[in-house]
Amino acid sequence: MYQLTARDIRRRNRFCVLQAVYAASGHTSRQQIAQATGLSFATVGNMIAELLEVGVLAELGYEAAGIGRPRAQLAINPERGRLIGVDIAETCIHVDVFDLAMTVLRSTEIPVDPAATTPDDIVESIVHGIGEVVAGDADRVLGVGLSVPGLVEPDTGTSVFSPYWHWQQVPLKVLLAPQLPYPLYLDNPLKASTAAQLWFGAGRDVDDLIVVTLRAGVGIGVVIDGLLYRGVTNSAGEWGHTNLVLDGRACPCGRNGCVEAYVSAPGITATLREIAPGSPLLASDDAATLAAVAAAACRGDSTAVAVIERTGTYLGVAIANLVNLFNPRRIVFGDLVARQLGVPLLEATRRAAAHHAMSDPFAAVTLELDPLPHNPASLGAATFALEGFLADRETFTSVSARRTRRTDAPA
Amino acid sequence: MYQLTARDIRRRNRFCVLQAVYAASGHTSRQQIAQATGLSFATVGNMIAELLEVGVLAELGYEAAGIGRPRAQLAINPERGRLIGVDIAETCIHVDVFDLAMTVLRSTEIPVDPAATTPDDIVESIVHGIGEVVAGDADRVLGVGLSVPGLVEPDTGTSVFSPYWHWQQVPLKVLLAPQLPYPLYLDNPLKASTAAQLWFGAGRDVDDLIVVTLRAGVGIGVVIDGLLYRGVTNSAGEWGHTNLVLDGRACPCGRNGCVEAYVSAPGITATLREIAPGSPLLASDDAATLAAVAAAACRGDSTAVAVIERTGTYLGVAIANLVNLFNPRRIVFGDLVARQLGVPLLEATRRAAAHHAMSDPFAAVTLELDPLPHNPASLGAATFALEGFLADRETFTSVSARRTRRTDAPA
Ligand SMILES: [Zn+2]
Ligand SMILES: [Zn+2]
Repeated sequence: MYQLTARDIRRRNRFCVLQAVYAASGHTSRQQIAQATGLSFATVGNMIAELLEVGVLAELGYEAAGIGRPRAQLAINPERGRLIGVDIAETCIHVDVFDLAMTVLRSTEIPVDPAATTPDDIVESIVHGIGEVVAGDADRVLGVGLSVPGLVEPDTGTSVFSPYWHWQQVPLKVLLAPQLPYPLYLDNPLKASTAAQLWFGAGRDVDDLIVVTLRAGVGIGVVIDGLLYRGVTNSAGEWGHTNLVLDGRACPCGRNGCVEAYVSAPGITATLREIAPGSPLLASDDAATLAAVAAAACRGDSTAVAVIERTGTYLGVAIANLVNLFNPRRIVFGDLVARQLGVPLLEATRRAAAHHAMSDPFAAVTLELDPLPHNPASLGAATFALEGFLADRETFTSVSARRTRRTDAPA
Repeated sequence: MYQLTARDIRRRNRFCVLQAVYAASGHTSRQQIAQATGLSFATVGNMIAELLEVGVLAELGYEAAGIGRPRAQLAINPERGRLIGVDIAETCIHVDVFDLAMTVLRSTEIPVDPAATTPDDIVESIVHGIGEVVAGDADRVLGVGLSVPGLVEPDTGTSVFSPYWHWQQVPLKVLLAPQLPYPLYLDNPLKASTAAQLWFGAGRDVDDLIVVTLRAGVGIGVVIDGLLYRGVTNSAGEWGHTNLVLDGRACPCGRNGCVEAYVSAPGITATLREIAPGSPLLASDDAATLAAVAAAACRGDSTAVAVIERTGTYLGVAIANLVNLFNPRRIVFGDLVARQLGVPLLEATRRAAAHHAMSDPFAAVTLELDPLPHNPASLGAATFALEGFLADRETFTSVSARRTRRTDAPA
């Protein structure tokens, strides 16, 4: 059983307070934060003082309250620094520069040449992309987060395995460090999307949620009690390769019948081929096929409706299993498939899940589409950098040491 | 995000220290406890002083250490009180009286008359059973724990739904309270078995494990970071009714293809019927059939071997899904099916899980048979009472208030 120290609690409370400020999107007050977080007013005051002192928050003046003292209005100080989010995908590398209010200042996309995908090639593209957008802000970058597909070791910054480029144990952080003199944070897109939802999306008002990412591959991020659940070796949430159909379709992972083989973009294309071989909805690539299915379903095309219905059945069964096992408060569906098939897929999924899940946990959960307008992988990667900055002992320990004399854990 | 208070931490540390004492099975020292728990020596000393003061622990004298001061030997004080565990099952009610070292002092079993299963009938049997075994210890009972099948609301002590008797919203605790003047704790057998493993079995040296119960029904208890995971409405871990075979066998829950329909005792009987209709291994009830299959497999009977192999494949796929989703350190299999089919089933399950699980989380987990000799549901129910006693504010707050002046949470 791991020991919780006062520092753990302090860091957790700091995250908690700041998440409430972001959730208020604009400005807020100590009173509102105390109400939103359930933390004591004293704790909130303490955290706010610390965040003001390091310049993360700014006071905007006072708002007259109906009764009593006017309330100081607080907001994120966007100019405190810059965060960079990098989403490394199969065909392109997306780079965003954010201010501390997580507003995108500048973005770029560097295409990935399919003939140049060695680790050195990718590192060069990342460095090049960041150089393009960092501009005059190079001195103000607090950290860089990278969303790296496949199996990632965040502690060492290693890409253990990439599904696209057959990398093995690539020490990405070590390769990047000489050219990027910032704190670097790596994890996979599922973890990144989950962090983005947790801070800025579906997790702002819910502590127990599951973020389902549906694109070429599929996967989930599980948030338990406000924290990303990682399992004992950071491999938790491998939902994409749980078994859905015994002895079913071949999956890119080499197994048969995985969830991914049915509800990913290629999986849905396969379902379309099964229902209507040679259908005119089959386009040049999976994304175009999904767009065609979505448009056709709008017109009431029976093939498109059947594809969405069957996909919703597959997804609903797989989601019901998650509902039964994790008993979460909310499940949010994001990325390509969710953007293209949206509400019709959500409705079909909900019907199937309602049948397959146990009634008690199903009654406790809501199924929703991703509310975030931005690329969640890049935003989430930048969120890793934000979390890293906020957990930084050098920035915060000296402040907290001055602010309180009781920093040791109660026995 | 819920707020951790100093009291939460203190209670958690108290559980942690006491679990280490139980794990030492006999006697131990402050030094060994600090080593086993990872807690600081100061924290351990503080907890031990408190536990000695309330009489839960006793000092047995000193053992000369090789170097330095002799070490005080500590042990549970079995005479501090009595705990009662009740396992309510379909055909009988099992009652155990434990001393505080969790040694069974006396047991009894009250058969359940299939014609008398109203809540009042069952309450009468429970009270009668406890009266039979409590003997001269009535004044020393610290609490009574009850393992109640089906859906249970621990906070209100309500049996929301029983799979055997078609109860709905039975306020069991309210019905029992007038006749049992002790603190009462209710939860289902899965939660009870998990608590038993956590304190006294497979969870003694592992903080992240899954306890799989395989009998007429099947289910799991999930332990994350040393704590039973309950989900947002105490419904987490409904693995028995996750989908294993799309459009598969009918399950008693009314759905099709649930895990339970394949790996429960009746599910295995159904597999035997599929493989060899009219097989001489089919006995009068599922338990006898399992015993016949186990004995025949020992002799190399091909039907019995095939039944175990196929059951292992079903179980292995369902376990692989858990490995992928939860990434635990250990999975332990207990109850009727595991006791009867033991190692052969475990080996077949391991082979199938190795194929279906992702290699990374599979490498991190061990699959094992339940190491506990005792009825885990009754032991676990008594463990709820132990936990309740240890969390009791009246017993411990006055002591801790005397022992320390800093009991408020760090801000
Ligand atoms: Zn797969
Ligand atoms: Zn079922």
